[in-house]
Amino acid sequence: MTVMNSKVNYGTVTIVGVGLIGASLGLALKQAGVVNTVLGVGRSTANTERALKMGAIDQVVDLVGAAKQSDVIVLCVPVAQMRAAFEIMEPHLQPRTMLTDAGSTKGDVILAAKEILGKKACQFVPAHPIAGGAQHGANAAKADLFQDKQTIICPLQENSLQDTDLIEGFWRSVGARVKKISCVQHDAIYAAVSHLPHILSYALMVSIINSEDVDQKLEHIGAGFKDFTRIAASSPEMWRDICLGNRTSILKELDQYLLVVGHMRQLIAENDGAAIEKLFKKASQARQDLDTL
Amino acid sequence: MTVMNSKVNYGTVTIVGVGLIGASLGLALKQAGVVNTVLGVGRSTANTERALKMGAIDQVVDLVGAAKQSDVIVLCVPVAQMRAAFEIMEPHLQPRTMLTDAGSTKGDVILAAKEILGKKACQFVPAHPIAGGAQHGANAAKADLFQDKQTIICPLQENSLQDTDLIEGFWRSVGARVKKISCVQHDAIYAAVSHLPHILSYALMVSIINSEDVDQKLEHIGAGFKDFTRIAASSPEMWRDICLGNRTSILKELDQYLLVVGHMRQLIAENDGAAIEKLFKKASQARQDLDTL
Repeated sequence: MTVMNSKVNYGTVTIVGVGLIGASLGLALKQAGVVNTVLGVGRSTANTERALKMGAIDQVVDLVGAAKQSDVIVLCVPVAQMRAAFEIMEPHLQPRTMLTDAGSTKGDVILAAKEILGKKACQFVPAHPIAGGAQHGANAAKADLFQDKQTIICPLQENSLQDTDLIEGFWRSVGARVKKISCVQHDAIYAAVSHLPHILSYALMVSIINSEDVDQKLEHIGAGFKDFTRIAASSPEMWRDICLGNRTSILKELDQYLLVVGHMRQLIAENDGAAIEKLFKKASQARQDLDTL
Repeated sequence: MTVMNSKVNYGTVTIVGVGLIGASLGLALKQAGVVNTVLGVGRSTANTERALKMGAIDQVVDLVGAAKQSDVIVLCVPVAQMRAAFEIMEPHLQPRTMLTDAGSTKGDVILAAKEILGKKACQFVPAHPIAGGAQHGANAAKADLFQDKQTIICPLQENSLQDTDLIEGFWRSVGARVKKISCVQHDAIYAAVSHLPHILSYALMVSIINSEDVDQKLEHIGAGFKDFTRIAASSPEMWRDICLGNRTSILKELDQYLLVVGHMRQLIAENDGAAIEKLFKKASQARQDLDTL
């Protein structure tokens, strides 16, 4: 890595997984002019060819090639695939190479990194860019995906301050606002504000399409339903992995949520308008406050 | 009502309740040029003054005045207030006056109309414009709120074909696409596609603000959470009434939904990735299809 014109250059960066996040990151790094070369690792040639065509990556490599020649490697695959990627790369990983990731869960990824990378785990600075959304695949990629969005970094005790700073700068270079919290905090918070809503949204779609009058229901869907279920269009594979990777926190949040829903159900069944209104007022005010933050 | 330049004129129209729906309707009717005068009934002078100022209504009246002088009366108040409005208007209701409403539930409003209006119930053609959303109050009103949106009409057996046509034309005149279904179908369908998501969305906000680390959670909210909870900003009073007014259908849909969530919870607890992915795929495909309808 070299500093040119007061701008850090991250040299050769490999993106493992060229879906929405990976391909957007490639486009963003190139647009920022902070890399020499972007290499891409993909499961399917369809994916990597799309990423090549749109200029998100310059060249396709495999994980061994990536481990041997990269200055920075960014894992943008569903979180359950990270362990296997660490396993293939570990024997070939150069001491100068830094690793980061874009996984939506951190505890499980960090556990895999520590188990597989051993002493080399100090080269891995875990991250989670809060970007993406319902669309997925390289086709939806855009260079400004991370612009002004938060990227969470969960530094390991093993990381040097210098390495953490480097990865922090890396994510900032594509426009992200970086925030550091522990992986335990991360997984508890995102179970509540991201993972649970996704599960609830998937469940509503399943409930609708399982119903007898599904066609009639689908005909009468309005803007509110579409807002509520937008995240149910998200990648099934990615969200399966998140459910398993952050199981404990998700179940805790889900159970707390089900207590609230159960309470509301009871109030409706008991025709308790005053109590229902009180709860709705509290919720409505809190939601309105979100837009004025 | 007179036909001028091949356009029907609805004469003197009274809007009871000048919130988002009522005030938007006033603006839309005037913009369409299909009324002589728009009268407004409101609970608070703050509301009616705003509606007057923005030109949504020309004059403020009370319910008795409305019943005596209107060609069309549109009830745009929360559904639980409709019974009281029928009671005040009934003794003064002129035979030429047609009634319609904008209530989100139909079974309870129709029951109130039949019980209070008796033989005059034939003058009431129930409707539900699928418009509005999270914002509420006259301040959010806009003339194109109903444009290209569906308005459901649930004609009564007592309605003449002519009267139904008139109210259908009335809603079409503000740009709505009108669809006729029975009130039973209406309430079953909207319990699933509208009422349930609102309750679930309110519940998530309550669950978040009741949690110990609420401040941290609120700091990390992203676009997906905001989409999911947008409808939780809706009017607490209106949605309290909907919960009570359509209680039976809502509880049925809620219980079906809770079965799906309970099943997903079990799959997560059992680490059953394949089954989770299968459900998520089904949901994701169905949600993506909604955007291509």
